[in-house]
Amino acid sequence: MSEPVFILVRPQMGENIGAAARAMLNFGLGSMRVVGPRDGWPNPRAVAMASGAGRVLDAAALCGNLPEAMADLAHVYATTARPRGVTKAVFTPEAAIGDARARIALGQKVGFLFGPERAGLENDDIIRANAIVTVPVNPDFPSLNLAQCVLLMAYEWGRQGSEMPARQLHAGADVRPARAAEIEALAGRLEDSLEVSGFFWPEHKAASMRMTLRNLLSRLDLTDTDVRTLHGVIRALLRGPRPPGPPDRDG
Amino acid sequence: MSEPVFILVRPQMGENIGAAARAMLNFGLGSMRVVGPRDGWPNPRAVAMASGAGRVLDAAALCGNLPEAMADLAHVYATTARPRGVTKAVFTPEAAIGDARARIALGQKVGFLFGPERAGLENDDIIRANAIVTVPVNPDFPSLNLAQCVLLMAYEWGRQGSEMPARQLHAGADVRPARAAEIEALAGRLEDSLEVSGFFWPEHKAASMRMTLRNLLSRLDLTDTDVRTLHGVIRALLRGPRPPGPPDRDG
Repeated sequence: MSEPVFILVRPQMGENIGAAARAMLNFGLGSMRVVGPRDGWPNPRAVAMASGAGRVLDAAALCGNLPEAMADLAHVYATTARPRGVTKAVFTPEAAIGDARARIALGQKVGFLFGPERAGLENDDIIRANAIVTVPVNPDFPSLNLAQCVLLMAYEWGRQGSEMPARQLHAGADVRPARAAEIEALAGRLEDSLEVSGFFWPEHKAASMRMTLRNLLSRLDLTDTDVRTLHGVIRALLRGPRPPGPPDRDG
Repeated sequence: MSEPVFILVRPQMGENIGAAARAMLNFGLGSMRVVGPRDGWPNPRAVAMASGAGRVLDAAALCGNLPEAMADLAHVYATTARPRGVTKAVFTPEAAIGDARARIALGQKVGFLFGPERAGLENDDIIRANAIVTVPVNPDFPSLNLAQCVLLMAYEWGRQGSEMPARQLHAGADVRPARAAEIEALAGRLEDSLEVSGFFWPEHKAASMRMTLRNLLSRLDLTDTDVRTLHGVIRALLRGPRPPGPPDRDG
């Protein structure tokens, strides 16, 4: 098993079970167990809400009690808002998922417990877990529901396993960054055109105006397409008013 | 302004606007703007759903169009599933919030755009933003709704600003880690009691059995309370069967 098991403990509303399944699958998780669901199992409202994530519910294991649901797990984290007098290690979601990923890499089976909507996990559940996870919510407004808590844990799982680069400069289009020679040529064209238009005035400021323009063009992260567009812009502006049409072939 | 503005662009269902307000307030965010909500403004369904986060809706600015909503912002991130042919930097939520926090620290006003439920932001919206944010969801099941996307961005904001320690060993209870001398005394008590009970047999294994027990007690991260509990456990086991009652005062 290369992913954590998400165990819903005594969930009440089928809609939340379905939303939890969706949240899990959004981040590639598919291993759910359900302990004592209030409205029986399978739950038609859960199925309706899960929609495309119905396969998570189909594969979910129904368990009679929590010890049965976690019997094969080596490490279990209980999600709860407050430790409530239970002496146990408390992790942030980030640290808990990091810990879980390290354990899974060692071949351990791990699970996360999520409590019922209204009251959350009881101390009798929490004492069976190895550790506690607490989302650092606003203490003046801590209102995460079951599906939201599942979503945040699943997001952490996905975030820490994601190979998406933190920042892609020119993503999503068939372009490449402009090369220095292309920027140089664009800057030269612009300077020549502005020279013709009498832009560099007064003369004692001309040098600094040229530097400002060069610096501007160098820091714009232009693509090859941008450079072609700007060549056309300069050409059109220099030519002045005329009806739309193909550019002349003069440069 | 020390927090980002969340701009909901042409949101459709009031419930989602209310859920977005809750998600924001969960992580201490309260600055919302709403552009062209389908069902008018204020929206009673949004208010009902927001419940305790109604103050976020009360303070939200209603804007006629996107340029008006972002007019005072120095940097705007558009949340969208795919860049869809727009050439623009794409950040993960983590990197975008990191970037936003750095800009806010420099005194810049920043905002995040969230598109309508069904179709998401249009290219006409995205080209006005400075950068794109994409949640790294499962490509086979990318089903985040508006309120979930707001929740994940708000969570990232809270996560990166949280002062909660990644791991607290004995949180939530009035206890302290046991000191070495206390572990030493407990181990000595246990060894003595087991000696009496004939545990260390065969004799040639006694030394390694003692080491195993010492090592076990040393790695348990016991608290002062745990140590007292275990002293009582040893005492009771050693005494054998008797009816419940206060322990003798003999140690």
